Amino acid sequence: MKIVVDAMGGDRAPAVPVAGAVLAAKEIGCDIILVGCEKTIKGVLDKCGGPFGKIEIVNASETIRMDEQAAISVRKKRDSSIVRAVEILKNKEADALVSAGNTGAVVCAATLSLRLLPGVDRPGIAVVFPTLTKPCLVIDVGANIDPKPLHLLQYGIMGDACSRHVLNKERPTVALLNIGEESTKGTDFVKEAHILLSESKLNFIGNIEPKEVYEGGADVVVCDGFIGNVFLKVTEGFADAASELLKRELKASNWMTKFGAILTLPTFKSIKKRVDATEYGGAPLMGVDGRVIIAHGSANDVAIKNAIKVSAEYVNHHVNAHIIEELENY
Amino acid sequence: MKIVVDAMGGDRAPAVPVAGAVLAAKEIGCDIILVGCEKTIKGVLDKCGGPFGKIEIVNASETIRMDEQAAISVRKKRDSSIVRAVEILKNKEADALVSAGNTGAVVCAATLSLRLLPGVDRPGIAVVFPTLTKPCLVIDVGANIDPKPLHLLQYGIMGDACSRHVLNKERPTVALLNIGEESTKGTDFVKEAHILLSESKLNFIGNIEPKEVYEGGADVVVCDGFIGNVFLKVTEGFADAASELLKRELKASNWMTKFGAILTLPTFKSIKKRVDATEYGGAPLMGVDGRVIIAHGSANDVAIKNAIKVSAEYVNHHVNAHIIEELENY
Repeated sequence: MKIVVDAMGGDRAPAVPVAGAVLAAKEIGCDIILVGCEKTIKGVLDKCGGPFGKIEIVNASETIRMDEQAAISVRKKRDSSIVRAVEILKNKEADALVSAGNTGAVVCAATLSLRLLPGVDRPGIAVVFPTLTKPCLVIDVGANIDPKPLHLLQYGIMGDACSRHVLNKERPTVALLNIGEESTKGTDFVKEAHILLSESKLNFIGNIEPKEVYEGGADVVVCDGFIGNVFLKVTEGFADAASELLKRELKASNWMTKFGAILTLPTFKSIKKRVDATEYGGAPLMGVDGRVIIAHGSANDVAIKNAIKVSAEYVNHHVNAHIIEELENY
Repeated sequence: MKIVVDAMGGDRAPAVPVAGAVLAAKEIGCDIILVGCEKTIKGVLDKCGGPFGKIEIVNASETIRMDEQAAISVRKKRDSSIVRAVEILKNKEADALVSAGNTGAVVCAATLSLRLLPGVDRPGIAVVFPTLTKPCLVIDVGANIDPKPLHLLQYGIMGDACSRHVLNKERPTVALLNIGEESTKGTDFVKEAHILLSESKLNFIGNIEPKEVYEGGADVVVCDGFIGNVFLKVTEGFADAASELLKRELKASNWMTKFGAILTLPTFKSIKKRVDATEYGGAPLMGVDGRVIIAHGSANDVAIKNAIKVSAEYVNHHVNAHIIEELENY
């Protein structure tokens, strides 16, 4: 299996994507194509000490910055690492793509070049959230921030396929993220999406509030990309703030509490692991005709390695074939 | 000072609102009017054992349920506890109102009956979030789920006035909740609001991401009510889920960890207190010509007491007079 990695994507590129690719080549054993400034990448790779046989470099002279406007930058920077990586995937020179770069640009380049699966009008980013009981697939967390109600139905169908075939749920429950449980709650947009989902063949269980998502109230949760992104970032931000608060409180406390903290440390580590974005690493961009995995801009090398692992699973489970099959039935 | 309390509002009414009112009468020393089914309220009050001299009951024969549509229920149920409580406030028989009932119905009844302050087109619910460094006022968290960009500017002005005069900030920083820091990020709605806020006299510092809100990146954060409500509920939901996870991990762990947990318990309690909705209790409905404090539907008696405390502060700080003053300057 060969994965193409955008070596210039993310806050600390190319150091982090290259280090993550090296970890993946060693641990997962896949082949890697690193796309970006050849000279710089080579320097980082040499420092990492290989495995050189499993990693090749494809030069790209431009980089799309995190703050650039997606559509314009993709159109203008044809030799950017994102555009070139997508081309490599399109030409079937790789099985999947991983990027921690400008999310909007990755979505735009993938949509324009790879095209969408039949029956999909907009792609959506799907994230697996850890909950109290079982993993929950939330789609969309930021690909499409101004969707139509119909797009949410399509997210439901794609999420259902993914939950069924990757997470092995027999008949996944699908819910609509809303600020109240009643079908009369929310904006007109949400109410229309509620009607479409209710009329579908999905195992739709109605609206779900954020609290219930954490309790494991549904297997698949659909929402507009703006809300989904806020959901994701509030979770991450709160997790960070809570750890920071805990550290401070412990610093301020007496030796007895400190002693206690040392004893409970393994428990915290185990909790942090569950909510840590580093652990799940990458989120698939569902609906495009190709396997594109988006990693967090602040990802470290372990997160990049895990994103590459997710991309390999996406290949092995034939997710896109299952989505096409499901969509044909609608 | 006299506070009117909707005794039929909330998941466990009238027991909880009555018990909260009793606590407030004892601790804060204010007079209370309880509105709702007189007979039932009297029964609960008798069990609480007073103070009977400070609490009067006004009968209301109807109750608006949590799942009823706001506008319709307010128009039809003229003798509901919410509508009657708002009337009492309007007639200046009380200084402020507290309700844990159907939020939409409270917003609707207050807007229709009390009217809005000059220069305000829509009211907004303001919540004080605890952050790592200082309290942050987030407005709106659910009064207006489909706002215009102009409403967000008005929230900024009201939030600025409140932060200045209640939280004693000299020149509060105002930020716009968004999924990226750059002004090019977000929906057209958010971009338009960004322009209006940039052109205002406010100390506007641009977009803010959820993570930065927790870090104390701004004194006032404005957002549409749907997003704000998701923000609030994700925070609450995650806090609950994290405590639950912690409890489970500790149960599963060995005696050394358990011993450690007992020693660190005071630290957890201190953190929980900071993020606990019970502690801040009530959120003012800003922009209506009257002091209306909205409590959580799941509020317990301590939360209701704290909401009554917030309402007393709202009266003492002359927040509405300051808002009117600020709005006149725009």
